[in-house]
Amino acid sequence: MVAYNGALSVMYWDLRTGAPKQGVEQRSNVIGILSGDVFEMSTSAEMANYLSKLSTDEAKQSLSSVTNKLVEECQKEYDRNKKIPAEEYKEYVVIQAQAESVWEEAREKADFAMFKPYLEKLVDFNKKFIDYWGYKENKYDTLLHMYEPGMTVKILDDVFGRLRSEIVPLVKSISEAGNQPETDFLYAHFPKDKQKAFTIEILKQMGYNFDAGRLDDTVHPFAIGLNPGDVRITTRYDEKDFRMAVFGTIHEGGHAIYEQNISKELVGTPLCDGTSMGIHESQSLFYENFVSRNASFWKKNLELLKKYSSGQFDDVSVDDYYRAINESKSSLIRIEADELTYPLHIMIRYEIEKGLFNDEIQVEELPQIWNQKYEEYLGIKPDNDGVGVLQDVHWAGGSFGYFPSYALGYMYAAQLKNAMMKELPQFDQLLEEGSLQPIQEWLTANVHQFGKMKEPLEILEKATGEGLNVQYLIDYLQEKYSKIYQLS
Amino acid sequence: MVAYNGALSVMYWDLRTGAPKQGVEQRSNVIGILSGDVFEMSTSAEMANYLSKLSTDEAKQSLSSVTNKLVEECQKEYDRNKKIPAEEYKEYVVIQAQAESVWEEAREKADFAMFKPYLEKLVDFNKKFIDYWGYKENKYDTLLHMYEPGMTVKILDDVFGRLRSEIVPLVKSISEAGNQPETDFLYAHFPKDKQKAFTIEILKQMGYNFDAGRLDDTVHPFAIGLNPGDVRITTRYDEKDFRMAVFGTIHEGGHAIYEQNISKELVGTPLCDGTSMGIHESQSLFYENFVSRNASFWKKNLELLKKYSSGQFDDVSVDDYYRAINESKSSLIRIEADELTYPLHIMIRYEIEKGLFNDEIQVEELPQIWNQKYEEYLGIKPDNDGVGVLQDVHWAGGSFGYFPSYALGYMYAAQLKNAMMKELPQFDQLLEEGSLQPIQEWLTANVHQFGKMKEPLEILEKATGEGLNVQYLIDYLQEKYSKIYQLS
Repeated sequence: MVAYNGALSVMYWDLRTGAPKQGVEQRSNVIGILSGDVFEMSTSAEMANYLSKLSTDEAKQSLSSVTNKLVEECQKEYDRNKKIPAEEYKEYVVIQAQAESVWEEAREKADFAMFKPYLEKLVDFNKKFIDYWGYKENKYDTLLHMYEPGMTVKILDDVFGRLRSEIVPLVKSISEAGNQPETDFLYAHFPKDKQKAFTIEILKQMGYNFDAGRLDDTVHPFAIGLNPGDVRITTRYDEKDFRMAVFGTIHEGGHAIYEQNISKELVGTPLCDGTSMGIHESQSLFYENFVSRNASFWKKNLELLKKYSSGQFDDVSVDDYYRAINESKSSLIRIEADELTYPLHIMIRYEIEKGLFNDEIQVEELPQIWNQKYEEYLGIKPDNDGVGVLQDVHWAGGSFGYFPSYALGYMYAAQLKNAMMKELPQFDQLLEEGSLQPIQEWLTANVHQFGKMKEPLEILEKATGEGLNVQYLIDYLQEKYSKIYQLS
Repeated sequence: MVAYNGALSVMYWDLRTGAPKQGVEQRSNVIGILSGDVFEMSTSAEMANYLSKLSTDEAKQSLSSVTNKLVEECQKEYDRNKKIPAEEYKEYVVIQAQAESVWEEAREKADFAMFKPYLEKLVDFNKKFIDYWGYKENKYDTLLHMYEPGMTVKILDDVFGRLRSEIVPLVKSISEAGNQPETDFLYAHFPKDKQKAFTIEILKQMGYNFDAGRLDDTVHPFAIGLNPGDVRITTRYDEKDFRMAVFGTIHEGGHAIYEQNISKELVGTPLCDGTSMGIHESQSLFYENFVSRNASFWKKNLELLKKYSSGQFDDVSVDDYYRAINESKSSLIRIEADELTYPLHIMIRYEIEKGLFNDEIQVEELPQIWNQKYEEYLGIKPDNDGVGVLQDVHWAGGSFGYFPSYALGYMYAAQLKNAMMKELPQFDQLLEEGSLQPIQEWLTANVHQFGKMKEPLEILEKATGEGLNVQYLIDYLQEKYSKIYQLS
């Protein structure tokens, strides 16, 4: 199964980095056949037999910790796939495919009514799945666990509540602050090949290993790990805004460094992967926000950036540059949001999903609730549903429970940063010197190496000595943005 | 099986076009597992069951011609794989792997004695395989059929005998001719990206479809077809000799155009492939020799080449250029040989292989026989076995019977060219205009479209009205080289 998934990953990467378009149809057949075979293996009688034999107390005692964890993972997947009646799952896959293509058109036309019946079906299916899978405290927990094992509504309500009560006023103060940063110089022409060369320098500084990876062009950037010796990054370039490639690549680089440093012992097992979406995102956001949006990082690298660009930064000081790249402004589109307002976009989606699966919100109410929450949290309101409730693909793909990972990753990253500072108090100094290796080593020792051997909250507690604590993110944002906007 | 082979092809291509080196070990495991699964399917009880059910006269009558041919192909592979005892095959695979790595070192050290015991084992294994598979007239025929179904020693002895008796004296006359072409201008600095841009222009002119393919860099150039909508070319660049990339890419382009134009009806079946190594090579050599080493082709394209290069051809006439790129000179290394001497390199290998499998030659005699034949046919003698009998990887990989395909492809190409001239007498005019589409269409109608639906000699006879006839190649070489070297 790992081998087949490895082959599938190469084909996925290839499709998104220049595979000839006329070959896509037959490629889809190939992918369909291999994915089907993996699914069959994961739910086969042979698998059931292995699982029952290897799950006895006697077996557990004689097996290595890796094998025990591996059995646990396979059992989880077996249950997840086996508990849904095959016919029902097939229907669901068909609806999913339809929903994604309808969503594309609906978003373009800003026509929620068009998408509504499909979204209703997807929600209904997922409600039934929750019944099949079961739940403890809250139905939505079951969906959260797909992406973030151990995460609950109880935890999220608490942390999101505290985060919201701190960020919403901060966002408001900033929008009213007089001293907005100058940003014009960000938008000068910066040739793609020069951006790429600069980006490669930064990736090397971060500790991304080019002998175990490569950087390619794509439309929607991603990182993909085939195995720790082959973790690829893709990015895209905007010659009128270098930030897309530079910060985007640093973000994907964080994901990639995670997978490059999973223990070699786990290669060839399903444990050789990130432990959850949230922990994965914590690594990308650590590098993107805590490293590359830090002033110390640019004390070294603005000089380098000046070498690669065509004069646009020549008269720009590190402080001006730092303020410019940290400009915060409420915006409608999640993927364009800055690091301060971003969590608010996630909370809105979380509250809606939680309401949907606890029968407190109906699909038809979504546009109205969406717009109301945007106004309340961000102070702006979408003109139409295309830039509102229809903007993300996740729901069209049936991925409910996924969004919170983005914000969780951010909270994890802030908490890890705090813990790291105790062991690496010279953190800012390291950034100024471009010596990022101790940072990567700390992350590898505390996060990367474990792969799926530890659950997300287990990693967090072991690394930081406590459970999820949102205060670190709140402190970071308060301190940073009060300073940038000189709030009293 | 086709899906798995498709996945394997993507991984093969990826490994040779920049896959990170630290991922190679795990990638090899993935390839091993998928290849093993294909092998198992091809020899499974399920396959045996299909074959016996679908091979009855009654079944044959009710099945389409495609399905019948597909059953035939699967039967052939089943027999080939099933007749060798599994244990023996495993041993062979181990020896093969060892032999390849020993060969690499032996070639470097020019030490035949080091490689000899491995080569002896490989030959012995293949002799046993011939016994398992059976043979009709000549034991070596069985090996030839692996690469060129229907080809026999009887046919090859005849055509190679005639070819040799004509080429050997021609090569001798040329070496003694006074008017050798001027070639200095070929070796000027020609930047890689400019070579690449020129090469892409030429590929488009040939009719290579970039919506169904792509061009990448590699160390050992190849073309690979995943399906007709995705046939990729790879090439390498020498900035001191543009001919490597230009003629190399045209050659691979010929292979690729073949697979791009296989009938869509065959997609997803094992018939969607070139019918034999020889027919495949006929397509690459058609474009390389009969199109791109033709003076008319350069009447148009030398101007284009001047635009992309940095002045090296500015004072060069089409005639000078044509004579330079067609310089013929005996050389020791097959892959560096020109189009006149190339077939002699192949014949030497053919005669040795035929002797080995008919017990007329012993492995230990190889260096001596090799050197003697090079002296006799090409008038030169290797200084050491590294540039002699050890130069090719084929034998180390157990690929006996493969070499003749190269020369067969050449003969097929000359014969196809002759037949094409009857329908496209304006062939040279088309080249002068850069209108290569009718040429591609003729090849598609007569060769490409059939994939493996027809055997090589069937294709040749249908397209040219006769069996293999070496006279067309002899006439072509005699006429062309007598003119270039102004032989009386």
